[in-house]
Amino acid sequence: MSACGDGVVNEGGGTEQLNCSSDAQQHVEITQALKNVRLKADEPNSSGKLVLKTPKGTRDYHPYQMMLRRSMLDKIVSCFERHGAENIDTPVFELKDVLTGKYGEDSKLIYDLADQGGEILALRYDLTVPFARYLAMGKISNIKRYQIAKVYRRDNPAMTRGRYREFLQCDFDIAGQYDPMIPDVECAKIVDEILLSLDVGEFVIKVNHRKILDGLFEACGVPVEKFRSICSAVDKLDKSPWPEVKAEMIKEKGLSEEVADKIGEYVKLNGKDDLVEQLLSDPLISANKAAKEGLESMRLFLRYAELYSILPRVSFDMSLARGLDYYTGIIFESVLTGIQNLPKEEVSGKKKKKPPTKTNEGDDDGSLGIGSVAGGGRYDNLVGMFDAKGKSVPCVGVSIGVERLFSILEAKAIAEQRSLRTSATEVYVASAQKGLLEERMKLCQLLWENNVKAEQSYKGNPKLLAQLQFCEERCIPLAIVLGESEIQQGVVKLRDVVSRSEKTIKRDGLIDEIKNILRTRAQDSSS
Amino acid sequence: MSACGDGVVNEGGGTEQLNCSSDAQQHVEITQALKNVRLKADEPNSSGKLVLKTPKGTRDYHPYQMMLRRSMLDKIVSCFERHGAENIDTPVFELKDVLTGKYGEDSKLIYDLADQGGEILALRYDLTVPFARYLAMGKISNIKRYQIAKVYRRDNPAMTRGRYREFLQCDFDIAGQYDPMIPDVECAKIVDEILLSLDVGEFVIKVNHRKILDGLFEACGVPVEKFRSICSAVDKLDKSPWPEVKAEMIKEKGLSEEVADKIGEYVKLNGKDDLVEQLLSDPLISANKAAKEGLESMRLFLRYAELYSILPRVSFDMSLARGLDYYTGIIFESVLTGIQNLPKEEVSGKKKKKPPTKTNEGDDDGSLGIGSVAGGGRYDNLVGMFDAKGKSVPCVGVSIGVERLFSILEAKAIAEQRSLRTSATEVYVASAQKGLLEERMKLCQLLWENNVKAEQSYKGNPKLLAQLQFCEERCIPLAIVLGESEIQQGVVKLRDVVSRSEKTIKRDGLIDEIKNILRTRAQDSSS
Repeated sequence: MSACGDGVVNEGGGTEQLNCSSDAQQHVEITQALKNVRLKADEPNSSGKLVLKTPKGTRDYHPYQMMLRRSMLDKIVSCFERHGAENIDTPVFELKDVLTGKYGEDSKLIYDLADQGGEILALRYDLTVPFARYLAMGKISNIKRYQIAKVYRRDNPAMTRGRYREFLQCDFDIAGQYDPMIPDVECAKIVDEILLSLDVGEFVIKVNHRKILDGLFEACGVPVEKFRSICSAVDKLDKSPWPEVKAEMIKEKGLSEEVADKIGEYVKLNGKDDLVEQLLSDPLISANKAAKEGLESMRLFLRYAELYSILPRVSFDMSLARGLDYYTGIIFESVLTGIQNLPKEEVSGKKKKKPPTKTNEGDDDGSLGIGSVAGGGRYDNLVGMFDAKGKSVPCVGVSIGVERLFSILEAKAIAEQRSLRTSATEVYVASAQKGLLEERMKLCQLLWENNVKAEQSYKGNPKLLAQLQFCEERCIPLAIVLGESEIQQGVVKLRDVVSRSEKTIKRDGLIDEIKNILRTRAQDSSS
Repeated sequence: MSACGDGVVNEGGGTEQLNCSSDAQQHVEITQALKNVRLKADEPNSSGKLVLKTPKGTRDYHPYQMMLRRSMLDKIVSCFERHGAENIDTPVFELKDVLTGKYGEDSKLIYDLADQGGEILALRYDLTVPFARYLAMGKISNIKRYQIAKVYRRDNPAMTRGRYREFLQCDFDIAGQYDPMIPDVECAKIVDEILLSLDVGEFVIKVNHRKILDGLFEACGVPVEKFRSICSAVDKLDKSPWPEVKAEMIKEKGLSEEVADKIGEYVKLNGKDDLVEQLLSDPLISANKAAKEGLESMRLFLRYAELYSILPRVSFDMSLARGLDYYTGIIFESVLTGIQNLPKEEVSGKKKKKPPTKTNEGDDDGSLGIGSVAGGGRYDNLVGMFDAKGKSVPCVGVSIGVERLFSILEAKAIAEQRSLRTSATEVYVASAQKGLLEERMKLCQLLWENNVKAEQSYKGNPKLLAQLQFCEERCIPLAIVLGESEIQQGVVKLRDVVSRSEKTIKRDGLIDEIKNILRTRAQDSSS
């Protein structure tokens, strides 16, 4: 991502300024215009005319957004590849049976395809279940893979917060039978590297362990069959105050007040090593086998987190539970703590909806709570659900909530009035007078075959001013200006678009000259 | 894309060879294994067990395929950007109404989403109609854009030929009111540059013009209301011999034998300028206004094609008609003419299906006939179908049929036993003895924070031989081998994986040394 004008040295030294914030301005206008379209489209369609909108909870991405997204995704892919991950892709839909029974209550959010004869299909809800299906189908027992693809949830969209029905997930998972916490800590490391590289402000990586939670519940006297539903209640603590969660545990989930209170004492705790040691010396917890094992794992995790230099941003948080049933070990969730000046939540649609139930939020990355931008954990039994003999492959992974991060990066770019180039054109071929179309075409051909990014007007006789304005608006660094006299002399005028200075160059040496200029500027802007 | 081992200088000069073709071998095995899985999965599901497969006409992409695809897509994107195109993205589904009435008979191939309350949606069938919707919705009157995304058609898949129900399209379109044939010829230029850069053998870019076809039909006495259906019959000439097409025109479409025969004389013609002049001096054709205009356009197109150095691969082909109704001017289709050693068509599924009707083939790029890898044309009225006042934006574009090209590139890679690295790891951190996990982790951290792509075993005490074998199998160029004595001396052993030579380096200078080696090798392999 290069801000417009970067690396373009103003050689003329003049006072003229490029109109380089036009993109950001245009962007705001486009956003507003699209909002109006959308609002209009939400009105009753009395005329019977075609409604011009994208489906609810989805959006188009404009060129400046695609540039910003690409620069974001490049950083994410760099991180995945720095850790040696391989890339795979799977279809956007799966046999419905593949998805059935994997998401609990959230299954109602799955998009089904119409039954048009043949197989019963549904759009993928995440990348984790298709990955498990991929492993089982290919009998793959170990792989470190990443996948970047869109997933689909019929949720209530809150688009200004970066919550959509169609959204991109960036998943990194390590499958294989390995030693405790070594792959697990690398997943947290991945989140840390990515959030640091994207420069989205302060964040914390919350971790907990399903064994610690289960051990706690057992020690407090929760019956085994209620572990997951109590887990789900605890998971609401990032949104609801303890008295509400407690009430749910007692009234809806049937715990006694005494048991709920005991749980309440623990789930408010967070810390690092100190908390591990505190709990290990707590008679109630340390007497429980599962809790003790979970805490030993957590101690190891925190030790490794220190070696990987991520400990300052890691918090062992007893209130982190995560909604999905399939986690069996460590769980993560990363939360931005430094965001303040972002647009407030707007629920799309006309009337206020009931607040979505907690199971629709924060349980996976994309349908994230406020500030939550990544999540994941260990799921050792999911692959086994697809294997005829139940043979499983232990997995741990993390998913980056890209839309949320993109909203933040976009808001930042607008706030800073940063302008992004939306095309990569290096040279614009202009003509100073009429009748030179064929000469322009020959020059474009020469530039393209020498791998120079070049454009020209699609008009036969464009005005010179219009051509030069296009270069300035699009921040194209160089322009070739053609005239009859230059053609006769076998030369061209090469114009520096920013300084507006021109020099005459022999056609024979044109490509070398252009490549030299571009190389020098690339070096200047990177240094 | 770098063949495995490229740029890895065998410094030791030994006779040992890397087992670098293992990937290609493994690939064949995986393909076979997956085929077996698919065949099994196609059997009746008597046990009631979960069928382990991807939906019909879809596939997973494995890491070596993703590497190959990425290198292919990089070339395509480079070409689009060399021509100054901007990138956009649109949702995978659209309101069903947006797609209705755009594809004629092919509408039956559209995937509908289930009605789960709310809007009625369908998966996109191509990228052209969503692009037109995008233009109308944003009131965008000019843009040169590319979009690379998957589209969906419930067609009979022929997967070994690269025909799928889910497939990637790479579209380049120029929207705006411009002068004749200038944007049009650039679309053909794009196809030419891409096919040359992908090195898929000889090809021809067939062009025709809807006005020439319509003028021909008119001149031959076809009633106006039959123009499109006769067009559709002509379009079958790349698969069926003339007598069959003629029979269809007479029996199904109700032409007289005399009219059909007249058409038959013309649609067998192809050439370049010579054909344009021949037709312009043909009394029947030159008396028709539309045909004459079309031929003048074609003459201009061929002139520009010469300036853009693509003329040797362009053929003005009177049998090219293309299925879709929305084309209004120039039409293109590019066909590979040099492929021989590719797998023959296999129709997936157990019993032979009826051959698909022609409207399902070759009418857009992705559901392509044999050898056809790109197609497109001018569609000046499509955007107007979305505008309340019918205001249109003239457009011309081309779509690259990536799956077909990918099948060819993959078959070539296998035939050449070319091995692709599936990960980018530069340094593997190994330990020569037990108990060094934490030291390995510290080294990984050091490498990552210096942006070196690094991996280590996820086992606490891996065997040295296993670690080194992993490096050789994955073609990782460098390994750091850690031992107690090295740690005490503040040094590491840096091993060249290919030559198996090792040298001892101070830890302080490790990063510089690694970066120097990698830089030198990158230069060697690129020169």
